[in-house]
Amino acid sequence: MADVSAAAKGTVYLVGAGPGDPELLTLKAAALLRSADLVLHDDLVPEAVIAMANGQALVVSVGKRCGVKRVRQSEIHSLMIEAARRQLSVVRLKSGDPLVFGRAAEEMDALRAADVPFQVVPGITAAFAAAAQIGCSLTDRRTASSVELHTGHKAADAGPNVASESVTRVVYMPGRSFRPFAEERLGAGDAPALPCCVISRAAQPDQSMQWSTLGELADVIPGPAPVLLLIGWALADAAARNASGTSGEALRHLEEEPSQAAHEV
Amino acid sequence: MADVSAAAKGTVYLVGAGPGDPELLTLKAAALLRSADLVLHDDLVPEAVIAMANGQALVVSVGKRCGVKRVRQSEIHSLMIEAARRQLSVVRLKSGDPLVFGRAAEEMDALRAADVPFQVVPGITAAFAAAAQIGCSLTDRRTASSVELHTGHKAADAGPNVASESVTRVVYMPGRSFRPFAEERLGAGDAPALPCCVISRAAQPDQSMQWSTLGELADVIPGPAPVLLLIGWALADAAARNASGTSGEALRHLEEEPSQAAHEV
Repeated sequence: MADVSAAAKGTVYLVGAGPGDPELLTLKAAALLRSADLVLHDDLVPEAVIAMANGQALVVSVGKRCGVKRVRQSEIHSLMIEAARRQLSVVRLKSGDPLVFGRAAEEMDALRAADVPFQVVPGITAAFAAAAQIGCSLTDRRTASSVELHTGHKAADAGPNVASESVTRVVYMPGRSFRPFAEERLGAGDAPALPCCVISRAAQPDQSMQWSTLGELADVIPGPAPVLLLIGWALADAAARNASGTSGEALRHLEEEPSQAAHEV
Repeated sequence: MADVSAAAKGTVYLVGAGPGDPELLTLKAAALLRSADLVLHDDLVPEAVIAMANGQALVVSVGKRCGVKRVRQSEIHSLMIEAARRQLSVVRLKSGDPLVFGRAAEEMDALRAADVPFQVVPGITAAFAAAAQIGCSLTDRRTASSVELHTGHKAADAGPNVASESVTRVVYMPGRSFRPFAEERLGAGDAPALPCCVISRAAQPDQSMQWSTLGELADVIPGPAPVLLLIGWALADAAARNASGTSGEALRHLEEEPSQAAHEV
């Protein structure tokens, strides 16, 4: 077993909580959570992960819900800085990876300006958790030479307006309507048959998936947040398995029923 | 502490070993390694991670070194399938995340064809480990709306040949010469001043970084494999800190010297 660090006093750790399944925390994230004096977490971090914090720790939700911020970004900065100056160890827990589509850049700037030592601990970002659930490689020598991670607000106009079918594209926080994105990609020349998977609450017990094609995507109504959209030819085999009733979701049954699941895979 | 799964008999787990630091394994990966009967690992997985396997487990290296395969891909498939049929639990350990730039698609196809139950356990891919070491967000509302992961062989011709400066681009296995990539991106219209970081053995004890710009990149000689190239305006602040001697690498000292590191950050 590796020797795992405990949280140092006077230090802030920007920690990736992963996609939601507590087993997908890193050993380091779990050790820091167990030993930190103060835990500041986003709303998307599930209770099962927060419960891994030290029972003596002060745990504060600093997220926003339905777009309404409970705590301003500047207040998060002040909390982290003041706690570190009081020689507390601080874990700033962010869902997924802290350096992808979060406000980590601003938080690191504030910590640097205040001369507060910090460390970043990467986490499993939702794209890879979703791919594991689907049972589909994001890259495949046969179909996809690269992976792109976008956010919803920028997805439609990210990158040049030309066909890009040798890419697996993952859109974080795609919003409630896929129509603008679908129209943009079709307008750019991507094929209407391009497979799409909309996955709600990936790697959480109430995960759900909706399969479609780029041509049908505009009509898909996503499940509860967080939602992720995956699109690309790399998903073609998984889409076919889904259509024939042998979905990658069958993999979820493995832990309960390993022997019976053999024919579902 | 979360309740962590042990490896089930007759099942294959395609497990991400993360970038090399044993603390960056997930709780699930560590639990599976501790309980598996057979561990098949790539050469890039470091000894410190392999040492986490159960002392009773059979551990086999199936990687390639210097491009020479020790074990053919079809032999890896046979090993996994035969072991599972003998009711052994099998961990197929891959560096980083199993679904990014590996042969996981072929391995999953073989397992499905053989009706062997399997599960994919995501891991921290090198791009996010490198970003954590640099102390730089891969996305930033101010500079980068998306992240692209490429492989070296395809990096130069991946995506359309137009400027794409609002992207953070990460190239895995970029090879020993950056000249073709640099010429391609400059030819596409990307700015010669675009910051680049070449990171060798990210998140391992002998990690090293080389900073440059797109204009200078062709002359950079990379350190030992695995090597990762990061390029984009999101790296600008980190590049400036490096130039002024307050590099993100200072973060690595935190664990040893938390109090003294405050002014280096």
